[in-house]
Amino acid sequence: MKPAPLRLKKDQERRLLAGHAWIYSNEVDTAATPLKGLEPGQAVEVFSQRGRWLGHGYVNPHSLLCARLLSRDRAHPLGPSLLVQRIQAALGLRRRIYPQPFYRLVHGEGDGLPGLVVDRYGDLLAVQVTTAGMQRALPAVIAALEQVVRPQRIVLRNDTAVRAQEGLEQGIDWVLGEDPGEIELTEDGLRFGVAPGSGQKTGWFFDQADNRLALKRLAAPRRALDVCCYLGAWGLRAADAGAESVTFVDSSAAALDQVRANAARNGLEQRIQCRQGDAFETLRALREEEARFDLVILDPPAFIKRRKDEAEGTRAYQRLNRLGLALLEPGGMLVTASCSFHMERNVFLHTVQGAAQRTGHTLQLLLAGTQGPDHPVHPAIVETAYLKTFFLRSLPV
Amino acid sequence: MKPAPLRLKKDQERRLLAGHAWIYSNEVDTAATPLKGLEPGQAVEVFSQRGRWLGHGYVNPHSLLCARLLSRDRAHPLGPSLLVQRIQAALGLRRRIYPQPFYRLVHGEGDGLPGLVVDRYGDLLAVQVTTAGMQRALPAVIAALEQVVRPQRIVLRNDTAVRAQEGLEQGIDWVLGEDPGEIELTEDGLRFGVAPGSGQKTGWFFDQADNRLALKRLAAPRRALDVCCYLGAWGLRAADAGAESVTFVDSSAAALDQVRANAARNGLEQRIQCRQGDAFETLRALREEEARFDLVILDPPAFIKRRKDEAEGTRAYQRLNRLGLALLEPGGMLVTASCSFHMERNVFLHTVQGAAQRTGHTLQLLLAGTQGPDHPVHPAIVETAYLKTFFLRSLPV
Repeated sequence: MKPAPLRLKKDQERRLLAGHAWIYSNEVDTAATPLKGLEPGQAVEVFSQRGRWLGHGYVNPHSLLCARLLSRDRAHPLGPSLLVQRIQAALGLRRRIYPQPFYRLVHGEGDGLPGLVVDRYGDLLAVQVTTAGMQRALPAVIAALEQVVRPQRIVLRNDTAVRAQEGLEQGIDWVLGEDPGEIELTEDGLRFGVAPGSGQKTGWFFDQADNRLALKRLAAPRRALDVCCYLGAWGLRAADAGAESVTFVDSSAAALDQVRANAARNGLEQRIQCRQGDAFETLRALREEEARFDLVILDPPAFIKRRKDEAEGTRAYQRLNRLGLALLEPGGMLVTASCSFHMERNVFLHTVQGAAQRTGHTLQLLLAGTQGPDHPVHPAIVETAYLKTFFLRSLPV
Repeated sequence: MKPAPLRLKKDQERRLLAGHAWIYSNEVDTAATPLKGLEPGQAVEVFSQRGRWLGHGYVNPHSLLCARLLSRDRAHPLGPSLLVQRIQAALGLRRRIYPQPFYRLVHGEGDGLPGLVVDRYGDLLAVQVTTAGMQRALPAVIAALEQVVRPQRIVLRNDTAVRAQEGLEQGIDWVLGEDPGEIELTEDGLRFGVAPGSGQKTGWFFDQADNRLALKRLAAPRRALDVCCYLGAWGLRAADAGAESVTFVDSSAAALDQVRANAARNGLEQRIQCRQGDAFETLRALREEEARFDLVILDPPAFIKRRKDEAEGTRAYQRLNRLGLALLEPGGMLVTASCSFHMERNVFLHTVQGAAQRTGHTLQLLLAGTQGPDHPVHPAIVETAYLKTFFLRSLPV
C-alpha cells in the first residue's frame, strides 16, 4: 500500500529538520491532509507546507503525538530491509560493549526505531511495542529479530498501560518458544534469577547496570539499605562491594522472596535482611528504631509519570530523600535515582540538596550517572534521556 | 586576630542557607559593615540582617564575589584544625577510589576548601591558590598537606591569570623539595611523562581520566584523530583500545614532542602521526586531503571563559564539531568535550547535534561523561560542575 501524504503547516518542519522525529496533530495541515481518514499505524510520507519531502513515518490519528518519522531516505521506508539494517546496527553496538548477551538491544528512538523496545537475555528476547505504527510492523519486526539475532524464544511484553494511549490491547504473548519461567542473568560476576515473561517491565532494569558497577568503585559500605529493591540488584552489589549487612525494602513480598533466592545464589544470604512494606513507612519505622547506614540506595519507580504530576512528584522525591538521608551516617554515601523524564536533572539535584540541608548533611556529588549505553539518547529528542542516578558522599563531620 | 563581622542585606542569606558558599558585594549591608576597611583575604563571620550567624569565611573587598563561606561550625574557623580535617576527608575519598596515587586531591568548593586546588602525583603535590583568603592561609595549608599526605615535593602552580582578579601575583614556587623535571604517571596501564612544575595547568588533566577509560569500553577504533591532544592521553588510549593509526593535532610543537615520547614509552610509536598547527586550520587541511577517521576526539581548551564570550564561544564549538564530524566515517564515534562552565550541558548537546545535521550524521549519545569523582561537585554550587564529555556514535548508513 502506498504511504499517504501528511502535510505540515507553515514552518512546522523545523523540529524535524533539527533531527527530532515527532509530529503533533496541531502541526499538521489537516485541510490539505486530514488525519481523520487515516488508520492507526498507517504509513505516511511527511511533507513541509511548501512540498519538501521530510521523511517516511507512521501515524496515529487518535494521538496528540500523531506521527513519528522513521526514515529520511526516500528509498527506505519502514519494512523488512530497514528493520534488519537498524537491528544489525543496534546489535553491533551492544556486541562491542557487552561481554555477555544481557542488555537492551533496541531502545526506541535512540536506535531509530520509535515504538520498539527489545531486551536481550541470552537467547531470549523480550519485546515491547508502544505505538500503533510499530504494532502494524510487528510481523516484520519479529522476522527481522529472528534473522539478525537468531533467538530461541521471543516474548511480547505488551502488558504496559502506555499502549492504551495508542488504542492498543495489553497482554503477554510468547511468539517463539515457550516461557522458561525463571532464567539466570549475570551482571559483572553476580547471578540473578529473572522472569522475562512475568517480572516488572521486561523483567530486569538494564538501565542501571553501569551505575551498579560504579557503586563497587565509589563506595565501601559496611551497612547498606536498598529501598524499592525489586530483585536486589543494587543491594547485592553493595554486599559484593563488602557490606556486612544489607537491608532490602520493597512493597512486594514476592520480590523479597526473589531477593532471598538471589542472595543465596551468590552465597550472600547471611548478610541480608528484608523488610516488606511501603518505602516511606518503612523508612520512618527505621528512623524510629534509630537504624543507621553508611550506604543508602533510593531507586523508586517514576513518581512523575505525566507533566501534571510534577509538583506532587517532586515533593515525593524530596520526602523520600529526606527520609533516606535521616538514616545516613556522616561520611556515608547516598545513591539516589529518578527515572522520571519530567524530573529535570538539575531540579532533581536541587531537590536532593534541599533534603540534605534539612537533615544536616553536606554532600559532594561524585558521579551523575545516566541510563547505560544500551539505552542511547537521541541528541535531538530530549525525551529519550530519562534516568538520573546521583552518587553523593556526605562529608564526614 | 578576631574575624570581622560581615552583615548581609535583608533576605540575602537564602542562597547560603541552601548550601551555597558565595557572597556578592551587592548582598552586603555596607552601611553596617563596610567592605572598604577590610584587607584582601581577611577572616570574617557572616551574619544575616537579623543577626543570625551564618558561617566563617574570608573576604576580598576588591572582588565582586567578595566573600566565601568556609565553615558553618562556629567553633571551627579556617585554621590548622579545619584544614587538616578537610584534607583528611578529601584524601580518604581518593584512597578508596583510586588504586594509584594520581588524582586531584582537593577540588576547591567541592571539598569544602574554596580557592584551593591540589593535584597529586605520587609523592609530589601541585598546589594552586586562587583567592586572597586561601593565600593568607597558605602556610597553614602547606603544613596541613605535609602532615596529612607526607609528600616529598610541593610546587605552587600559581601561574594562573585568575589570580589577577584577586590582586594576587603569579608565579611557580617549589616550597618543598626540588623540581624533578619530568615524572612518570600511570593511567590504567598507560605510562606518561608529566612535568608538574612546567606543564599546562598543574601538568595533567585528571578530570578526563574516567572518560578516557570509558573510551576503551565504548569504541573499537581503527583510525583515530585526537585534536588539541596536549600530551596524548586520549589518542594513546585510542591506540590502547586497538587503533592502528592515531593522528595527533596540537598547536604546540613541544607538546607533540612529548606525545612522541609518550607513545614510545608505551611501545606505540609505530602507530602515531603528529600534525602541528591550529586545530581549525588542521581539520580543514585534513578535509581537503580527504582524510577519514572512525574515531574523532575533540577536547579543546575552554572557548567560553567569561559569560560575555558565550555567543562567540558557542559558534567556535559548533565550527570545531562540524569540522570534526566532516572527517568521521558513518558508524564511527565522536568524543567531544567542553570544559566551559558557561556552556550549559544541553546547549552543548544541541550545538553538537546542529553540527551533525549539517554534516549528514545521525548520532546516538552513548555516554554523557563529566569530570571524575576526584573533582566533586557541590550540589548547591552549580559553578563547580564544568566538564561535559559526550560519546556519540554515528549510526551506520
